Amino acid sequence: MKVDGVPYRTIWPNDDGSVEIIDQTLLPHRFETATLRTLEDAAYAITAMQVRGAPLIGVTAAYGICLAVRVDAGDEALDRAYEVLNATRPTAVNLRWALDEMRAALRNRPAGERVDAAYRRAAEIADEDDQICSRIGDHGLPLIEAVHKRKPAGEPVNVLTHCNAGWLATIDWGTATAPIYKAHDAGIPVHVWVDETRPRNQGASLTAWELGHHGVPHTVIPDNVGGHLMQHGMVDLCITGTDRTTATGDVANKIGTYLKALAARDNGVPFFVALPSPTIDWTIEDGVAEIPIEQRSGDEVAKIAGKTAGGDVVTVQLTPDGSPVANYAFDVTPARLVEGLITERGIAPASREGLAALFPERSRGS
Amino acid sequence: MKVDGVPYRTIWPNDDGSVEIIDQTLLPHRFETATLRTLEDAAYAITAMQVRGAPLIGVTAAYGICLAVRVDAGDEALDRAYEVLNATRPTAVNLRWALDEMRAALRNRPAGERVDAAYRRAAEIADEDDQICSRIGDHGLPLIEAVHKRKPAGEPVNVLTHCNAGWLATIDWGTATAPIYKAHDAGIPVHVWVDETRPRNQGASLTAWELGHHGVPHTVIPDNVGGHLMQHGMVDLCITGTDRTTATGDVANKIGTYLKALAARDNGVPFFVALPSPTIDWTIEDGVAEIPIEQRSGDEVAKIAGKTAGGDVVTVQLTPDGSPVANYAFDVTPARLVEGLITERGIAPASREGLAALFPERSRGS
Repeated sequence: MKVDGVPYRTIWPNDDGSVEIIDQTLLPHRFETATLRTLEDAAYAITAMQVRGAPLIGVTAAYGICLAVRVDAGDEALDRAYEVLNATRPTAVNLRWALDEMRAALRNRPAGERVDAAYRRAAEIADEDDQICSRIGDHGLPLIEAVHKRKPAGEPVNVLTHCNAGWLATIDWGTATAPIYKAHDAGIPVHVWVDETRPRNQGASLTAWELGHHGVPHTVIPDNVGGHLMQHGMVDLCITGTDRTTATGDVANKIGTYLKALAARDNGVPFFVALPSPTIDWTIEDGVAEIPIEQRSGDEVAKIAGKTAGGDVVTVQLTPDGSPVANYAFDVTPARLVEGLITERGIAPASREGLAALFPERSRGS
Repeated sequence: MKVDGVPYRTIWPNDDGSVEIIDQTLLPHRFETATLRTLEDAAYAITAMQVRGAPLIGVTAAYGICLAVRVDAGDEALDRAYEVLNATRPTAVNLRWALDEMRAALRNRPAGERVDAAYRRAAEIADEDDQICSRIGDHGLPLIEAVHKRKPAGEPVNVLTHCNAGWLATIDWGTATAPIYKAHDAGIPVHVWVDETRPRNQGASLTAWELGHHGVPHTVIPDNVGGHLMQHGMVDLCITGTDRTTATGDVANKIGTYLKALAARDNGVPFFVALPSPTIDWTIEDGVAEIPIEQRSGDEVAKIAGKTAGGDVVTVQLTPDGSPVANYAFDVTPARLVEGLITERGIAPASREGLAALFPERSRGS
């Protein structure tokens, strides 16, 4: 996507073999790229969340392997790089997958060929993600077109989204945002209601930033507002991402997604979830009962970072001294509230049958 | 209620005729009282939101009249004080009502009696609010007792609340918090999930503060969390306040209340609303269609105040430069989602018939 007219991806190799990323810890107040020159730089970028989002973490790890084999292309060094990177975010499924792909691509090659092979495979992984997201956009675009056609001329299609399932979380396009960017680029007037997404505010700081700099009209709202907007016909469509989708179409996504899905159902607003099929967990039947929900540090709720009038970014405490805080990172939206799952192969009804029809080879395996 | 063991109200007259308030703009990071000595002090306290909450604004205005007649008890000065105070928060119905009460109590008296009469009437208005809230607590208490009786011994009753309908918004007890304080003071173990209540964070800064300093166990959560908690049986009861209740039982309350009511309904959690009957608007039938929802400054969403590590309170910007922001202050929860309305006369079903049965003299008037 574009940043003020210039096309970007979230990660790319430089001519000298180093790797460039957008330092997302500085957003939305500063846009800067950072150069990764070593395995340790790549590991740090993941740990410090300079990069985040499953696909981008995976690709960063893949390039981390490239940076490691530049220094030492031997088996031992490769194994060590795998371990170092794999330890950065132990629960990130994509990370492990990308590292396995890289090791498989290099292991049976002579050391002299490994550097080239590594950069080639890392670039392929990045391109594959780009294509998956682009296809999600192609399949979601008709949903927005259909609303556009039935609305009076000049009125934008209002899409509500939660958290950041945008291009910053992937290589390009994003998942939930892909249909939005495709529609905007096709000249369809789209306006996005961006949930700020407490406590980490990924909506206010990342989604708003990327939509704004690509030129997509949007409005940041507190997470409390969506229900009111839907009651008053101000939302045509909800599209969110998902961290994990069950074989039956339940969706684990950023905390608060479930509340928006309830409001959408109560007001007849279609609620869609965009996902690359690798995030489907074919072994899980009941999302609410079976998906463990991570509890994160209470400091993420009690404190928040922002920009002072002087331009410094500082962290301030919001809660009273001594008040306990709870911080559940995700919730599960039952399939019954989801109108459809927008995947790289098309839109599936949120049900076992719906998913099995689109991914027969995967659903049979479970 | 108590602050670290010492009983407080939100406002009280000093022996020298000045009036003491808790300066709520400093909460939760500093607990300080402020002394109002003049009409202008009282007007400033309301305008600057040192006091907030409809009942407390009304009583502050009543004492503002007292401070004015101390200086000049003539008719002209009384009328001027009325106008000055009435202009502080033009949409606050309670403010107008309290000023009318004060003027009625003074107008037909000789100037020499007006100072005493003013302090007497202001104290009565404060006491009446105290008693209304206390009775709301008495009527709501059995709801908490009933849950307590059916839960295993030692397990607390978990109540979720939104915004601040606490004693800080009234003279004492609060509305939504009154049953909670009554239960806690009666030795029933209660634990409160406190929605932080973006964008103004009245839950995190006021409700958490008052519960904590009275000694009520509580946990601050982002507004996104309640649905997840209800899915997992971690909420026994929701109790919120309301700014305006229709004759049919629809409830206009702080933005986001509707989302919690939806989650409560989806998970079989009873959702109650506590209110003094004067907040019922007997002229309105359909809350969603008829109640205009105030839009406030986007700065309330884009910026937030908090305490730095050094102890200073500073304001920081959360959103990207240039991203538009919307800030709807309230939403309407339809009566169908409300299990009951806890009033000073008892609990009414959220319906025209339910309210009319408790308040026959009012409902007939409409």
